[in-house]
Amino acid sequence: MENVKVIIWGLGAMGGGVADMLLTKKGVDIVGVAGRGKKIGTSMYDYIKTEKGDREDVLIQAAEDVIKPGAADIVILCTDSFTKNAFPRLKFIMEQGINVITSAEEMAYPAAQNPDLAEELDKIAKANGVSCLGTGINPGHIMDLLVLVMTGCMTDVKHILSRRVNSLSPFGPAVMEEQGIGISVDEFMKRKADGSMAGHVGFAESVGMMAEGLGLCVEDFSQDMNPIATDVDRKSPYGFAAAGSCAGVSMTADAKLCNGMEIRMEHPQQIEPEQVGVQTGDYVIIEGTPAVNMVNSPEVEGGLGTIAMCANMIPQVINAEPGLHTMITLPIPRALMGDVRDRICPDKKIVK
Amino acid sequence: MENVKVIIWGLGAMGGGVADMLLTKKGVDIVGVAGRGKKIGTSMYDYIKTEKGDREDVLIQAAEDVIKPGAADIVILCTDSFTKNAFPRLKFIMEQGINVITSAEEMAYPAAQNPDLAEELDKIAKANGVSCLGTGINPGHIMDLLVLVMTGCMTDVKHILSRRVNSLSPFGPAVMEEQGIGISVDEFMKRKADGSMAGHVGFAESVGMMAEGLGLCVEDFSQDMNPIATDVDRKSPYGFAAAGSCAGVSMTADAKLCNGMEIRMEHPQQIEPEQVGVQTGDYVIIEGTPAVNMVNSPEVEGGLGTIAMCANMIPQVINAEPGLHTMITLPIPRALMGDVRDRICPDKKIVK
Repeated sequence: MENVKVIIWGLGAMGGGVADMLLTKKGVDIVGVAGRGKKIGTSMYDYIKTEKGDREDVLIQAAEDVIKPGAADIVILCTDSFTKNAFPRLKFIMEQGINVITSAEEMAYPAAQNPDLAEELDKIAKANGVSCLGTGINPGHIMDLLVLVMTGCMTDVKHILSRRVNSLSPFGPAVMEEQGIGISVDEFMKRKADGSMAGHVGFAESVGMMAEGLGLCVEDFSQDMNPIATDVDRKSPYGFAAAGSCAGVSMTADAKLCNGMEIRMEHPQQIEPEQVGVQTGDYVIIEGTPAVNMVNSPEVEGGLGTIAMCANMIPQVINAEPGLHTMITLPIPRALMGDVRDRICPDKKIVK
Repeated sequence: MENVKVIIWGLGAMGGGVADMLLTKKGVDIVGVAGRGKKIGTSMYDYIKTEKGDREDVLIQAAEDVIKPGAADIVILCTDSFTKNAFPRLKFIMEQGINVITSAEEMAYPAAQNPDLAEELDKIAKANGVSCLGTGINPGHIMDLLVLVMTGCMTDVKHILSRRVNSLSPFGPAVMEEQGIGISVDEFMKRKADGSMAGHVGFAESVGMMAEGLGLCVEDFSQDMNPIATDVDRKSPYGFAAAGSCAGVSMTADAKLCNGMEIRMEHPQQIEPEQVGVQTGDYVIIEGTPAVNMVNSPEVEGGLGTIAMCANMIPQVINAEPGLHTMITLPIPRALMGDVRDRICPDKKIVK
């Protein structure tokens, strides 16, 4: 079998990370990178951590010039967070007859906020005989999929608390800016009011996925964000929060499902939580029979986790029945450790 | 859509528990119970915890009299631990054109120890257009599936330690006898030598499933069992271990995969671990990028967990492509909380 052929669209932290990861794997080739502006014509290796060495070069091209029928088995799209922004790109990829995985957070469960677009994507996928998946660490795994997997050993579920306490310290300047690291509490409240405070994108999607997974639906959903004001100076590689300013954002959501069951989501993210004695971790706390009281500590690092999920789901998406998928319609995620080709159904291979 | 129709074969602790659980769910009916000997002709309700109340009675019948073409959408077979014992029953069920889930431990990954029978089961399933799955809490979830799910957020995996420290206190006299609770260490070693010490069935299956899940294969595998001698008297509802005798069994396994990676399995099971300060729990400890350091404490109770897994996987197995499945070829397990029919593809329904 030919190696699995992958095109990466967007070489930011996520797309670049996927490139670095795939270059360490067997049976898979990066056959193209789609980008724009001044990056076009330059080498992929100028933007990732891996050195080119003896490898053949991969030049960045306009999407239209590289994503063509038969050019690859799958495209990894890492350019957006929101379904409506990713939609035209997803449509274009699938209309070339190529499968796609995207790291866009809302695409982990697009039916939550864009049911019409989700339906449209499903139609486009089926019409072109390909599959589409949105995934990442969160939404996509740690606050939703993992919760569902644990309910698999329960005879009854009464209440779900999904908590991710993470450190923003590993992230770069863009995330520091986006999450308001170092701004005043007043400024935070102003940004929150005008909608320019990013916070975490994905609670509605996680809740929607969990509800569908359990065979229920969402009756009420609300979310909130509040500043994590620090009482000591905190300094991370790319961020600084003076005492009294914002060291992070605390996001929460509350949902009620159609059977009356409640889901609580808690996601405080901040730089240098250790400095103030906060133990980071991923918590799955489920009331029911039997109860679940699980923690992974420290938390799975968000960047690496999303990169891994996008790459590790490649075989499942290539092998899937055509359509729009979510993490609950495909076999479980797991690390790609052998030859990727061994996990591909021959009749699903596009580049033969 | 007609309710999902289920036949339960074997009304011991597992089959009876599945019956109790399904009686609390919507959109699903227990339409028959297969048993043998004196149980035939008696009521299912004589052997389970749920009271009959206003429900229609379900009488236990010989398998041949109840498992017939079109009689049910799925059979839950809870009579065996080993593939070779379950095989003729699985064959019979599938030849009647009915899907099957079994709690037989070895059936969680039958290719590990009975590759010929696994292949045969796959052929029978395909020839009859039905699906077959072996599942349970362990093997099937907590020491294998959960590990794989966590590798899904990893870019590289270096070493797996899967540890389940559980209490045998909730279990009845059969398990006390089987696990040698209260016997002397000499007696334990004698039983171990002559192969009559049960211990845990499933390490080879868990390791096989994890290897395949990662796209690797098993190069070396060995397991061992040792007595957990207690230095204080321990008393559980159905067991007693005097100081100096055996309060449980400590099972371990070591595997080496074809890429050199090692998997270590540790599963000490004993009555009243709290009495000697042992904290029970399910541990997933993975070296790699990023590392995983997860614990669910206390552990998911084995009996309830297996009952839940067998019942919760019903939709996935009915909806599956025909063949022999494992937990890594189907969508993720999760609790049945809504109407079970909502999760069934209409064209996969047998009893229309």
